[in-house]
Amino acid sequence: MNELKSRLFKYLEENEDEMIEIRRHLHKNPELSFKETETANYIESFYKDKDVKITRPVKDEHAIIVEINGHKEGRTIGLRADFDALPITEETDVPFKSTNEGVMHACGHDVHTAYLMLLADALISFKEELPGTIKIIHQHAEEKPPGGAKSIVESGAIDDLDEVYGIHIVPVAGPEFIGYNKGPSFSGSSTFKLTINGLGGHAASPHKTHDALVAGTNFVNTVQNVVSRRIDPLDMGVVTIGAFEAPGGYNVIQDKVTIKGTARYLNPDLEEKMYHEIKKISDSIALGFDVECDLEYNYGYPVLYNHPKETERVANILNNSVGDYFQQLVEIPQVTGSEDFAYYLQKTPGAFYIVGSKPENVDQPYMNHHPKFDVNEDCMLVAAKSLAEITLNRLDSNNE
Amino acid sequence: MNELKSRLFKYLEENEDEMIEIRRHLHKNPELSFKETETANYIESFYKDKDVKITRPVKDEHAIIVEINGHKEGRTIGLRADFDALPITEETDVPFKSTNEGVMHACGHDVHTAYLMLLADALISFKEELPGTIKIIHQHAEEKPPGGAKSIVESGAIDDLDEVYGIHIVPVAGPEFIGYNKGPSFSGSSTFKLTINGLGGHAASPHKTHDALVAGTNFVNTVQNVVSRRIDPLDMGVVTIGAFEAPGGYNVIQDKVTIKGTARYLNPDLEEKMYHEIKKISDSIALGFDVECDLEYNYGYPVLYNHPKETERVANILNNSVGDYFQQLVEIPQVTGSEDFAYYLQKTPGAFYIVGSKPENVDQPYMNHHPKFDVNEDCMLVAAKSLAEITLNRLDSNNE
Amino acid sequence: MNELKSRLFKYLEENEDEMIEIRRHLHKNPELSFKETETANYIESFYKDKDVKITRPVKDEHAIIVEINGHKEGRTIGLRADFDALPITEETDVPFKSTNEGVMHACGHDVHTAYLMLLADALISFKEELPGTIKIIHQHAEEKPPGGAKSIVESGAIDDLDEVYGIHIVPVAGPEFIGYNKGPSFSGSSTFKLTINGLGGHAASPHKTHDALVAGTNFVNTVQNVVSRRIDPLDMGVVTIGAFEAPGGYNVIQDKVTIKGTARYLNPDLEEKMYHEIKKISDSIALGFDVECDLEYNYGYPVLYNHPKETERVANILNNSVGDYFQQLVEIPQVTGSEDFAYYLQKTPGAFYIVGSKPENVDQPYMNHHPKFDVNEDCMLVAAKSLAEITLNRLDSNNE
Amino acid sequence: MNELKSRLFKYLEENEDEMIEIRRHLHKNPELSFKETETANYIESFYKDKDVKITRPVKDEHAIIVEINGHKEGRTIGLRADFDALPITEETDVPFKSTNEGVMHACGHDVHTAYLMLLADALISFKEELPGTIKIIHQHAEEKPPGGAKSIVESGAIDDLDEVYGIHIVPVAGPEFIGYNKGPSFSGSSTFKLTINGLGGHAASPHKTHDALVAGTNFVNTVQNVVSRRIDPLDMGVVTIGAFEAPGGYNVIQDKVTIKGTARYLNPDLEEKMYHEIKKISDSIALGFDVECDLEYNYGYPVLYNHPKETERVANILNNSVGDYFQQLVEIPQVTGSEDFAYYLQKTPGAFYIVGSKPENVDQPYMNHHPKFDVNEDCMLVAAKSLAEITLNRLDSNNE
Repeated sequence: MNELKSRLFKYLEENEDEMIEIRRHLHKNPELSFKETETANYIESFYKDKDVKITRPVKDEHAIIVEINGHKEGRTIGLRADFDALPITEETDVPFKSTNEGVMHACGHDVHTAYLMLLADALISFKEELPGTIKIIHQHAEEKPPGGAKSIVESGAIDDLDEVYGIHIVPVAGPEFIGYNKGPSFSGSSTFKLTINGLGGHAASPHKTHDALVAGTNFVNTVQNVVSRRIDPLDMGVVTIGAFEAPGGYNVIQDKVTIKGTARYLNPDLEEKMYHEIKKISDSIALGFDVECDLEYNYGYPVLYNHPKETERVANILNNSVGDYFQQLVEIPQVTGSEDFAYYLQKTPGAFYIVGSKPENVDQPYMNHHPKFDVNEDCMLVAAKSLAEITLNRLDSNNE
Repeated sequence: MNELKSRLFKYLEENEDEMIEIRRHLHKNPELSFKETETANYIESFYKDKDVKITRPVKDEHAIIVEINGHKEGRTIGLRADFDALPITEETDVPFKSTNEGVMHACGHDVHTAYLMLLADALISFKEELPGTIKIIHQHAEEKPPGGAKSIVESGAIDDLDEVYGIHIVPVAGPEFIGYNKGPSFSGSSTFKLTINGLGGHAASPHKTHDALVAGTNFVNTVQNVVSRRIDPLDMGVVTIGAFEAPGGYNVIQDKVTIKGTARYLNPDLEEKMYHEIKKISDSIALGFDVECDLEYNYGYPVLYNHPKETERVANILNNSVGDYFQQLVEIPQVTGSEDFAYYLQKTPGAFYIVGSKPENVDQPYMNHHPKFDVNEDCMLVAAKSLAEITLNRLDSNNE
Repeated sequence: MNELKSRLFKYLEENEDEMIEIRRHLHKNPELSFKETETANYIESFYKDKDVKITRPVKDEHAIIVEINGHKEGRTIGLRADFDALPITEETDVPFKSTNEGVMHACGHDVHTAYLMLLADALISFKEELPGTIKIIHQHAEEKPPGGAKSIVESGAIDDLDEVYGIHIVPVAGPEFIGYNKGPSFSGSSTFKLTINGLGGHAASPHKTHDALVAGTNFVNTVQNVVSRRIDPLDMGVVTIGAFEAPGGYNVIQDKVTIKGTARYLNPDLEEKMYHEIKKISDSIALGFDVECDLEYNYGYPVLYNHPKETERVANILNNSVGDYFQQLVEIPQVTGSEDFAYYLQKTPGAFYIVGSKPENVDQPYMNHHPKFDVNEDCMLVAAKSLAEITLNRLDSNNE
Repeated sequence: MNELKSRLFKYLEENEDEMIEIRRHLHKNPELSFKETETANYIESFYKDKDVKITRPVKDEHAIIVEINGHKEGRTIGLRADFDALPITEETDVPFKSTNEGVMHACGHDVHTAYLMLLADALISFKEELPGTIKIIHQHAEEKPPGGAKSIVESGAIDDLDEVYGIHIVPVAGPEFIGYNKGPSFSGSSTFKLTINGLGGHAASPHKTHDALVAGTNFVNTVQNVVSRRIDPLDMGVVTIGAFEAPGGYNVIQDKVTIKGTARYLNPDLEEKMYHEIKKISDSIALGFDVECDLEYNYGYPVLYNHPKETERVANILNNSVGDYFQQLVEIPQVTGSEDFAYYLQKTPGAFYIVGSKPENVDQPYMNHHPKFDVNEDCMLVAAKSLAEITLNRLDSNNE
């Protein structure tokens, strides 16, 4: 198998240029979650003439599953990359900057998809030598709950997986770095949209109105207490207000305000507790400001639980390559971000780990979701190789 | 003159249908302040074949002055109506509802312009019998400081006015009602735009960001203290936040927030004082939340000062018609709204008064600037007649 | 009568030293509202050997009425001064500084009482020459609603008054200044005490508590909206929080917080409206912070209404003395402070006016209720003389 | 040694009544931190006729060290209990309720001191059979930073300790429960006092004042952001405001407000960070509300670090007694409270653990620092026995 691994790595190295080209194409043409029509078509066309089974498992959404059948018995392994982008206006100077105004691959899903397409390509090339089955999961809509993972799981299309693996790139370090964590690793999250309806009017007559804007700013300020006063200081908890939408002029008192936010937690008990506290504050604002508060609350991605046994195996496999194509394997702290990869892991054993993507010669990189987010493209080869060797190991049912 | 007044009133009555038609046309085709290209063309074309002098006194803006020359010596009297609309999405069910999405004549400028066009038409028809000169001022951009009035005054085009008059419709009562006030009558106002620049990032890592949204909501809450704690309770003062613009998703912490607001006052000392307090709070938010606060502050329309002598004359003239074409003449309280008619009155004696426009069979009318603002169109005839008789009186230099 | 006035003025001048001595004694020995035992005894003993009728009209409280009977027919005139002090720790350096720690005559009631005692003394001395009856009302508890005036009125002891007059000293100007206002002159006021009961605990475990302190600070911040957003900007309105009592250590989360405040208004409709808004906010804090909010709300002194006819008469009488013992008689704006003198004026015609008390050579005097409040004692003679000449005029029923 | 242990346990059992009597005496006579004169005298008199060396190591403070010399060679072991009480008004119904109004043993220091006195008594009784030296540290002022521990350590009086141990009782469970934690176990804490000086005045004239109270409530609300937005959600952090002192009446605007609070953290980097953020907010309030903010910030007790080796030894020793005099030995989560025992552990290896004290038949016990805090006195025997067997083991230098 080591010989096969060498050839597979070589194949990946030889195709690095294409990986980069694909990534840049995706970066230039980002599409928002659930609207990834062109992206999905682009990905599907990549596999058109290859000997694989392509399915679109979720009706009216853009998920693509590419099934690669090895020529021997073995396990069925899922590999997943997401391909949607964010509603962020890119502020980088890269030549392949987003041409879709207001939309940006600011979370690296372009990178995820590109390395996985080439890894799939490599696995297809060698499939006659491989045991088992690989399901490449090109997932849509990771950024927007309910997300794409849930619908893919519910479609039944991956019921037959024995194990599932995935990667996220993060610029905490350069591509020499791989990090993992066992147990509850990425936080659970919920999102909410609060619509406040008051009574608008002229700026000069506030007493004839019920000012929805001021009700809204009081909501935002009071909701700080959820984290500062109402959860155990030993528990991880965040409530972030991501949007406050009350556009208008100088002279009109707002009728209506829309506030969007997210709650995150690593202790599952907080899922319910945070809803309860946010609802209570929403109700109190309605009462105190004589407005209607309509709180739409969506329990989002659950806590991502990396299965200990599978995660340890991943660590063991990768540990042998430290000093080879990457330099550091680190057990990292829990991550406060959410990932709908959690849904796969609720059903199937596996692990989700991170690869460093910090650009060279940068001390303070812009993090994921920043309009200046940038990537060291060398991380794609690291990602592809690491997942390649995990896959080779896990396909073979002789390996424990 | 009374016989002339009768004929002029009759002319107006006979042309009420056209007045309504014009108003509805304008209502259906509202344009935002400073962007009233079509509206101005429409108005100008109305005068095309009439024996008047039409000028566009302000370069690159849409003001129109129509000069009507009587055939005898007399005073030069200005009559003004504004014609811009508001960035409000109309929510009425009228058949002539705005077809310009997001723009609405929610302050009655359509009504002002329509009645003044027909009044001008009437005055033109009778001009051979009239002394003096009438300048019809079709003013653009009343809703958006610096406003149109200031630039018209600065153009010099109305330097020769002896007196100036104007009307606003307000649904506090029906068209049977005319109200006036002497001295400081409409509040002075300033507007401000606060741009807060922080450092954005992922919702789950607030400690790596400087959250501009939360800084902004704290600004709004703290700024309530300007009125509640920092001005003399005996002085009229309002600070309204009209817009809070932080659109976005659930998961991205805001880089930047824009807040728009207005301050209003009837004591001129507060113009400076309110700026000072708002600036102080803006600076403190910058310090306390580690963000940049850029406060653009524009001293807006000054206090509208109705000249006592001219206002009393208006009251006397109208008093004789109570029970005729309207039923009530009331000395009303000061108005907390602003009007750039104040600029005309800084230069020229005159008065600005209100005509009731409440729809029939409505107890709680929607006020100006509300998306459901509606008008009793009978108010146009009242407005036209009242201004007609004031004009007839004031053109004649024999009248004191 | 002018000759009598001269002698009366001379008597007052000759006894100015005693007036000052009394004032300083009172200043040194201030007592809180409803607890003025020693002060009342001191005042009563002043009248002991004089030919007057002394009553204590209110059971268990300290009001004293001294009836002086003239020897001719005439009107019955009430003159009132208050004698209670405030819960303020004096911070002046006067030699007669308060010796009652934490209590201070910081509102000038010592001055009021001293000048009225000497004026009473003078009137007693001349009573054989006077028509009518004077009732000197030494009133307790002006500073603490329900106040002393209400109970005196209710006692029936002054049912027979024809007119009633009173004075307040204010350091807006020196003793050369007398100010008055007709109609609604001093604001109505209510007071409230909000007791918040939460659940205390250790500082490190906020999630196990319901933090009453944070609930309380949110109440204070939200209540700013009553004035800033919920009353007509043209109406005078103030809500002041005077106390926030949550004493304690660093490490204990508060069980209970007590907040005291007052609302003030010149439009009587706001009495009810402000209660309603404060209650609504109190209820919303209870809901949003899971605490109990017990709002004790007391409608306090009503708007003080200076009867126009009586006030004009006062102005006319005093106008003749401008340039004599004082220099300026000014019609002043409405006053945002409250005065339980309002209760006398609800029952009996009369007027309440102010005398300047600003210390010499001070530009920025400390106002009433400040721990450094200080007085120009010359104001006492001005107060005494002005009330003396008003009294002489009004006792005589021949005067209109 | 086991035989000795049995006799020692028996001695403790036989003297349980005295332990309870002492505890109740202390409970009835609580004294505040640094003011424990009578408490210290009471403790010292207990040892008066015993063969020990008593010292008061800290000048002008109340610490007492009782040195018990065994008759053989061995280690020097420190055992510590604290004896100060809290500024809390007791609300229990126990017959030995605090007679010192406003002061209460609401944290169990009465229990700590009582069991340690009897344990000391027992060790003295058996000292001829004991190796090594025991230093009983009766510590004052645990509740009030800088605390008593620091000054005892600095006195040099315990420089010779080989190991040091201590216990806290907590009603999370009954006396059947012992809990421990290795490494950073109790949070570090700082305290701060913010004095806000504004300009006071009359409630009705806020515009002439700089309202310190409203500045203070804004500080409290804004400071919630330190935890909610400015620290890593994965880090434990609390900022609690324990006191807001603005006592007063209804009608006086506050000159001055005092706010007391504490910050807590388990990541030592937050010690500096939290100061920085609180200072920034304090400065911004000064700017935004035109008041002076004087922030007195005291870095308090550091993170309490239980030495892993010593803690494991304690766990091993106690583990053998599970099922005997207690039933459960549990590795507990980190504790958000602070303990100045941390200072001993900065200098000397050792461990600090907890014993359950929940009253019988109570489901929701009142926690430490609550006015209704109550104790199951059986916990004293458990505490005494557990520390007895640890001491017997550690005194003997033959034990590893």
